[in-house]
Amino acid sequence: MNNPPYNLISELTVNLGDRSYPIFIGTDLIKQPHFFIDYLPSKQIMIVTNEVVAPLYLETLKSTLDGFDVSTIILPDGEKHKTMKTINSILNELVNTGFDRSCTVLALGGGVIGDLTGFAASCYQRGVNFIQVPTTLLSQVDSSVGGKTGVNHSSGKNMIGAFHQPNAVIIDINTLNSLPAREISAGIAEIIKYGLINDANFFAWLEKNMENLKQLKPQAVSYAIQKSCSLKARIVAKDERETGSRALLNLGHTFGHAIETGTGYGAWLHGEAVGAGICMAARLSARMGKIYTKTCERIETLISQAGLPIKSPATIKPQHFLNLMNKDKKVKQGKLHMILLEEIGKACITSDLDQKIIREIVLSNTLND
Amino acid sequence: MNNPPYNLISELTVNLGDRSYPIFIGTDLIKQPHFFIDYLPSKQIMIVTNEVVAPLYLETLKSTLDGFDVSTIILPDGEKHKTMKTINSILNELVNTGFDRSCTVLALGGGVIGDLTGFAASCYQRGVNFIQVPTTLLSQVDSSVGGKTGVNHSSGKNMIGAFHQPNAVIIDINTLNSLPAREISAGIAEIIKYGLINDANFFAWLEKNMENLKQLKPQAVSYAIQKSCSLKARIVAKDERETGSRALLNLGHTFGHAIETGTGYGAWLHGEAVGAGICMAARLSARMGKIYTKTCERIETLISQAGLPIKSPATIKPQHFLNLMNKDKKVKQGKLHMILLEEIGKACITSDLDQKIIREIVLSNTLND
Repeated sequence: MNNPPYNLISELTVNLGDRSYPIFIGTDLIKQPHFFIDYLPSKQIMIVTNEVVAPLYLETLKSTLDGFDVSTIILPDGEKHKTMKTINSILNELVNTGFDRSCTVLALGGGVIGDLTGFAASCYQRGVNFIQVPTTLLSQVDSSVGGKTGVNHSSGKNMIGAFHQPNAVIIDINTLNSLPAREISAGIAEIIKYGLINDANFFAWLEKNMENLKQLKPQAVSYAIQKSCSLKARIVAKDERETGSRALLNLGHTFGHAIETGTGYGAWLHGEAVGAGICMAARLSARMGKIYTKTCERIETLISQAGLPIKSPATIKPQHFLNLMNKDKKVKQGKLHMILLEEIGKACITSDLDQKIIREIVLSNTLND
Repeated sequence: MNNPPYNLISELTVNLGDRSYPIFIGTDLIKQPHFFIDYLPSKQIMIVTNEVVAPLYLETLKSTLDGFDVSTIILPDGEKHKTMKTINSILNELVNTGFDRSCTVLALGGGVIGDLTGFAASCYQRGVNFIQVPTTLLSQVDSSVGGKTGVNHSSGKNMIGAFHQPNAVIIDINTLNSLPAREISAGIAEIIKYGLINDANFFAWLEKNMENLKQLKPQAVSYAIQKSCSLKARIVAKDERETGSRALLNLGHTFGHAIETGTGYGAWLHGEAVGAGICMAARLSARMGKIYTKTCERIETLISQAGLPIKSPATIKPQHFLNLMNKDKKVKQGKLHMILLEEIGKACITSDLDQKIIREIVLSNTLND
């Protein structure tokens, strides 16, 4: 039987010694058995997906894995299900299926599915194999790479989880064609983040190519995914467990997590919260004399063009917003640590923060009722 | 203020590169701040203990940690609470206390407390600091060293968990004085295991010194703990994640886990199940022509002298027993892997097993109704 045509656009590596793994980027990759087989140490595969993604790609993937002992878990969709309760249901299913330590758990879906599946894989029998097949733009450019997995707690985003690297990340760009515009915009928030923290030229390219990217023009989207993944791979290889420079990837995330937790998980998409969070981090950087107000405006313009909010929602009262920020994982020994911009293409981490100024930023960057 | 007297009998190291850590063995160590302070990166400490241990040692430990920001979780006692539900309650408490990534979670208790606390530490904020203060013989000679943490599933022992190494293991031998005889015997099962898999002289020493050990004579007990910990440290340093030789530490455990799961967690102590499991593994080794029947008898004699059962309970029907064994973590790609003895002091791992012979061993090593 001939395999259907496909196009491998790029193959990157996350260098982590004996836990190194490839990122394959291309079209129709989920139809190609050979991208999977090398990373499956036994016949046992548990595909974890959700009720939105399953009707679109599950049967295709199952045909690709023909001959394997494939089981499936179909979860409800959405960030509000990223909980310990869902982790327990995945673990129960793994135990009941009788899968052993040689099994592979495969995430087919967006960031929520990847985070849940990776965390379950990290703690089933103290760690089993894990493959990421991200199907949203956000998960393809960010969350599927780097091994951060976990669930939310009612008091804080991603408070419970593990570092558990996948054995492979298989990015099939065709899966983006089924995404609603809102999900595309959410993914672009993280793409803009890479330009801001590391690459002024890429930021300028985004200013010129935003429309092509939003319309998923193949050249634009594959370039943006490659750029994002290669930067993330480089940062993760240097600082897997975020003891230093990896923290820069959290630009906009302390504000963003407060928005997600404060509005109730799922009301705002993660990327939307990060979009507004990046604008707030830029305003904070300007208020602290690190960047020009003009630079903030340039950033807000691009975030807006991406179809993202630039302010936090009025429904979260400022004091609650500040409380949520001070519960974030970026708090160490009572001190909030935040990522600030020094210019477009350069970020820094600081704990030298004045709570009054942060309050001012929260107050002036909240939408009116 | 003068510190109370203490006696540091031995200091061992588990060599794991930048995650290496010390094991301190001595008397009155829990009264000495300096054994703790070097391993506490911030003021935030969560002591996790249970309702039996708390009245005995919690206040002492809290005085030792005077000046720190100490919170406490007191869990119910027993293996039946080693569940995801208890993990959730520990995680909730950590979130609600507002502890950040720099906090330390300290296990004060036996193997169940150590396993629960370590697993919670591994997934709170994707991993925080962890100190083991084991207070039972079993946890002092085995479970507190090596980073295996986790909980039981109704279908299988330790099915969910993580490898999460402690920052230090502080073994205060005085805590053994409050242990009931049954708990002492349970710990001796794991001590005998070390002799069997690695050190014929130590096995012979145990044959001569069993009464001294059971009566907790200081010289005997400190020698046995040192021997056990130093062997475990060596094995863990070579094979942290049990891809090879570390599996030898599971001698008797596949039979033992089936006993624990089959009788309902907590009915038999882990060490009791391991005691009977070791005898069954010895009988299997003899049946497969690896050791003499005489050697089995020598092993059974020592296990009996330790006050441990040498047969599995009649309440588990043989077919159920076999089903439980075939769900153990030692199953890979449908094949059970077991640890067998080649002589006293030498063990091996094999997957070349005849289910009929295993059934025969289960049938002939079950107590009569």
